[in-house]
Amino acid sequence: MSDAPIAIFDSGVGGLTVMAAIAKRLPQERLVYLGDTARLPYGTKSAETVTRYALQATRALMRFAPKALVVGCNTASAVALPALTAAFAPVPVIGVVEPGARAAVAASTGNGITVIATEGTVRGGAYLRAIRALSPEARVIQRACPLFVALAEEGWTTGPVPEIAASRYLADIFGSFDRPDTLVLGCTHFPVLAGAIAKAAGDGITLVDSAATTALETDRVLDDRGLRRNGPAHAPAFLATDAPERFARVGSQFLGREIASDQVELVDFGP
Amino acid sequence: MSDAPIAIFDSGVGGLTVMAAIAKRLPQERLVYLGDTARLPYGTKSAETVTRYALQATRALMRFAPKALVVGCNTASAVALPALTAAFAPVPVIGVVEPGARAAVAASTGNGITVIATEGTVRGGAYLRAIRALSPEARVIQRACPLFVALAEEGWTTGPVPEIAASRYLADIFGSFDRPDTLVLGCTHFPVLAGAIAKAAGDGITLVDSAATTALETDRVLDDRGLRRNGPAHAPAFLATDAPERFARVGSQFLGREIASDQVELVDFGP
Repeated sequence: MSDAPIAIFDSGVGGLTVMAAIAKRLPQERLVYLGDTARLPYGTKSAETVTRYALQATRALMRFAPKALVVGCNTASAVALPALTAAFAPVPVIGVVEPGARAAVAASTGNGITVIATEGTVRGGAYLRAIRALSPEARVIQRACPLFVALAEEGWTTGPVPEIAASRYLADIFGSFDRPDTLVLGCTHFPVLAGAIAKAAGDGITLVDSAATTALETDRVLDDRGLRRNGPAHAPAFLATDAPERFARVGSQFLGREIASDQVELVDFGP
Repeated sequence: MSDAPIAIFDSGVGGLTVMAAIAKRLPQERLVYLGDTARLPYGTKSAETVTRYALQATRALMRFAPKALVVGCNTASAVALPALTAAFAPVPVIGVVEPGARAAVAASTGNGITVIATEGTVRGGAYLRAIRALSPEARVIQRACPLFVALAEEGWTTGPVPEIAASRYLADIFGSFDRPDTLVLGCTHFPVLAGAIAKAAGDGITLVDSAATTALETDRVLDDRGLRRNGPAHAPAFLATDAPERFARVGSQFLGREIASDQVELVDFGP
């Protein structure tokens, strides 16, 4: 048993979908969230830069002495997990890629898995490796959909713009005669666009959102180590490296409940 | 007369539209461009963070001993110009906001000016102040269009997605009976979307792109100080703070000519 919080890290507000899933599955846990809004998005940046930013930003979480770190950002999970694991040891570090890959392999009926993600995640190939490690024969198609991040951030989650964008990104994959049966939302921004994405993919496609499976994995890790908390519910804490009022405003729709801007602490890295 | 280069600074690749205009107007000048791709976009970040990033990034340009600094980024021009002017003194620093405001006031027939820009530029109100300083009675409407940045970066500059997006942002302004006559593209990303934007704005609207007017202003400043160069043409230099190959690929369409990825030097700020 441990009263320490679970720390959740993301480049911005997208990881709040992971936070929401963890809060739902583990309602008794204390949660602290950090969004590196001063340097978002990570998805178009190099692996070296993402790793450097992730290490620097997560340092602000160490003062909470968390019992686990969840990397609720696909790009950072895909490229910076080894560095973060080393920096936080012996605190367990949980990424979103492996749980997502496991859920995809479990869901697929054998006709192939498509992973949609940021440019950085696709280029890094982490989903491809994680899926192949579980299912060496799986047919995997990756597709970078960077505009989805901006659409989600702008709150344009329904209507013609996201639908046409989704169709432009996905029509060739899901219009083919051997269309995949499973579609992984490999970016934490994408679940808010699930409707438009599902419409573009068409009938009979299973959408895999790594938020729920990452919450399950977090539960399993805490259980394994005897780190679950049994105290009463505790208000979450939010940190952002820039523009806390924007974090609160845009973040509320990702978390699925209101965040007050005075609930968000600004973390300053200095010059 | 001075053989020193003109330095051009932007958060990413958008300022290359300004560079193209300067190269066209002043073909004999040496140009060096820096894109702060490690921290882009600036448009959603706070004034303090943008100023800090701009000061840090432009330091890399000082080794070229430039004779002028052009801030080819509306957000940085809107919030960081005083700090950059102080840091580079006595080297003149030229932003894009004032030339754009001057061109808008010159173009307007009196029915009002609309400025479209990033959230940061709109919030800072620099265009509003610059236009009012020149024309105190002018009716000015500002509108943040953050998705345009992502569309431009993605290369989705024509077709239904940018057109519907432009209509969603602009329909209420240009559908009104007292529609403005002038539309300022207050972000260096926007000129590549000019077709979709013009279509949404409708007939009889003058689009003002600050790139050409900033080139004119640069010419005037050099002329005033006797700093023009008369040597033969010189290949430009490109610096980026992250992902030089992406800079070259995406940047080529903003510059309007090919940039080879080995032409782009990576500038590392360290941890």
